[in-house]
Amino acid sequence: MSDPNDVAVRAMLAATPVLRDVVPAVDALPGMTPRTILTSGAPLPWSAYSGGQRRAILGAALFEGLAGTPAEADDLLSRGEILVQPCHDHGCVGSVTGVTSASMPVLVVEDAVTGRRGHCVVYEGSARERLTYGVWNESVHRRLLWIRDVLAPVLSTALRSAGGVPLRPVVRRALGMGDDLHSRNTAATAVFFQQMYGPIIETNGWSDSTSDVLAFISQNDLFFLHVGMAAGKCIADTASGTTGSTIVTAMALNEKEFAIRTAGTGDRWFRAPLPTLDAKLFDGIRPEDTAFMGGESLITETVGLGGLAAAAAFSLQDYSGGTAEGMVRTTEAMYAITRAEHPEWRIPYLGFRGVPFGIDAQLVARTGVTPRIHMGAALRDGGHAGAGLLIAPVEPFQAAASALEGPDPA
Amino acid sequence: MSDPNDVAVRAMLAATPVLRDVVPAVDALPGMTPRTILTSGAPLPWSAYSGGQRRAILGAALFEGLAGTPAEADDLLSRGEILVQPCHDHGCVGSVTGVTSASMPVLVVEDAVTGRRGHCVVYEGSARERLTYGVWNESVHRRLLWIRDVLAPVLSTALRSAGGVPLRPVVRRALGMGDDLHSRNTAATAVFFQQMYGPIIETNGWSDSTSDVLAFISQNDLFFLHVGMAAGKCIADTASGTTGSTIVTAMALNEKEFAIRTAGTGDRWFRAPLPTLDAKLFDGIRPEDTAFMGGESLITETVGLGGLAAAAAFSLQDYSGGTAEGMVRTTEAMYAITRAEHPEWRIPYLGFRGVPFGIDAQLVARTGVTPRIHMGAALRDGGHAGAGLLIAPVEPFQAAASALEGPDPA
Repeated sequence: MSDPNDVAVRAMLAATPVLRDVVPAVDALPGMTPRTILTSGAPLPWSAYSGGQRRAILGAALFEGLAGTPAEADDLLSRGEILVQPCHDHGCVGSVTGVTSASMPVLVVEDAVTGRRGHCVVYEGSARERLTYGVWNESVHRRLLWIRDVLAPVLSTALRSAGGVPLRPVVRRALGMGDDLHSRNTAATAVFFQQMYGPIIETNGWSDSTSDVLAFISQNDLFFLHVGMAAGKCIADTASGTTGSTIVTAMALNEKEFAIRTAGTGDRWFRAPLPTLDAKLFDGIRPEDTAFMGGESLITETVGLGGLAAAAAFSLQDYSGGTAEGMVRTTEAMYAITRAEHPEWRIPYLGFRGVPFGIDAQLVARTGVTPRIHMGAALRDGGHAGAGLLIAPVEPFQAAASALEGPDPA
Repeated sequence: MSDPNDVAVRAMLAATPVLRDVVPAVDALPGMTPRTILTSGAPLPWSAYSGGQRRAILGAALFEGLAGTPAEADDLLSRGEILVQPCHDHGCVGSVTGVTSASMPVLVVEDAVTGRRGHCVVYEGSARERLTYGVWNESVHRRLLWIRDVLAPVLSTALRSAGGVPLRPVVRRALGMGDDLHSRNTAATAVFFQQMYGPIIETNGWSDSTSDVLAFISQNDLFFLHVGMAAGKCIADTASGTTGSTIVTAMALNEKEFAIRTAGTGDRWFRAPLPTLDAKLFDGIRPEDTAFMGGESLITETVGLGGLAAAAAFSLQDYSGGTAEGMVRTTEAMYAITRAEHPEWRIPYLGFRGVPFGIDAQLVARTGVTPRIHMGAALRDGGHAGAGLLIAPVEPFQAAASALEGPDPA
């Protein structure tokens, strides 16, 4: 019999994610309803959300017209008449708060091998104030409407006409151009843009809307992050359900906890209190001004990118701190807790060695080395605050490894 | 009195090159005539050109309609009725053969500080057979006509409408994305494209021609090379004529010689026999199949890029060979022969240290360390063969340094 971890990792390596479309979440996500709001991380009771996730969920309820005021939304959420559920349970991942509601367009990434799909909302732009970072106000509202009503239809038409965009080659090229594909997506966005400007114009004509959409994509260096996240979810889920495998298929944060899932333990979350984010903050922001408010962009690390590919992205020193030598050490340490090296996604500085791929909870538990994660920092009161390095806590990996050895209580 | 080398380097550091336009060489280049053909390197008598430069010059004579057959062109060239002159004497640089004739469009890069200009023909595309690499045939002819009659007018209109493209920021971004700006211009081209697609479409409308031009730029990773070369010429010439300075203002090859100019020695060339190119060749090509046929893309090294910025471009291992460690050593060695570090053009791996900038012939002569140059390799019979590393010979630097100490015979 094959080693279950080999089976899981082979499935992930075989995955061939293609960006197919952008469609409203309610039409794309399994189990999604007009009264469901998805958010990052292992689920908490509504009353436990007190910071950015709470604000973003209330905002989404207003965005969807489910309530007229935050108080009314709070009441409906308390009574379970609006449901809050984890993105990951609906084939989806979200950035920071990860709030995803019915009418919000999600990027649809499909594995050409298995047909399995991963989803993520469209990148919201680089303004400090975003729903992503726990802010709901008029400018956030306007931008979400523009993404829904202008960007998504334009991009959808183009993607369907182009037959989709294969994403493995975009990631491959971007790793050769200084991206880690988590905190830095500058090259991936440029490569994606070079592929999409033609179909966008050909299918939509040249108009103010088209021009605005092209400008939005080409001027937002992190636009590709959410595409890569949907791809990461698509890839990781090809390993989900592999009996006996301790390969990590999700790492996610909510306001209170870091949590993981593994291939062999189904939908069960293994949770631990939040670790500390060692962040480089924008000018004038102090560490005490920041707070966790969720995050599932860690799906990039789950598929060998982000912190695991730190040695590909020395330019991140400017954005999230650290040193080139430290980045090399970070990536090198990750080979001890991963089961493979990706044959196409390779790191120039390491002589084109493949990125460390397929985190094994058992190897993490055994070595005590935990995943290094590149992450955005959020302002306590909402907004983007900077970026840095998160060292995952070991406990969830230990618990997941033990769960597979003993009887599964899930 | 200021040190002449400080004066020269300060001028080069102050240069602020802006891509202004694309116009026929005869309208842009000082001293250019309809019967002049420019080529790379220190000048040789017509009879001395025997390989790729000869073929390309004959091709240009046919392209311009100066002769009906190669034999007729040869005759006119032998009798001096068609003139062959160095690009560098006309504010211009050329890639490999560097052949530039009257109707060929040249990129016009202007220093916003001094108004000084540098020029270079438009990148010819990635086909192995090009005039650049010493080939003249029907497909080369067609592509040159397309560049002249379609691409150049489209790009010219857009550049004039946009008010030009400042190039320092493009180079800065590209160095952070794995380019050396000589053998690798993948990121610079992508960044340039992101800035130019809008003006190109807005000023020309969306048509087959526009679409073809956009595709040509975005699909040719080396498109920006010739823009950067024109910028390099513009920058280097801000130091030209600095009395007493041993700062290198040109390095160039012809079929037979490597040659340099310095800021303090005017138009005089200091020549040496050709060194060896340590190249990684395309599959199936042997070293004995290759030959030198000129080259002035070394202007990028003259302004701190290319081999001097090797540590920014680890992805080049795939294209031109070497190792990441070797690239770091290459750049580090160059600080011993340069007078400054560029404050904006910085290398992520070296903790964002500025590229070594301003090669001093005196430092080269004193240390024996010579510039390391990233270069394309050419097939003896014409065509692109690969790329590699050229170690400049020391003699021209010694001669230039001595010339400034003794009386100048030029």
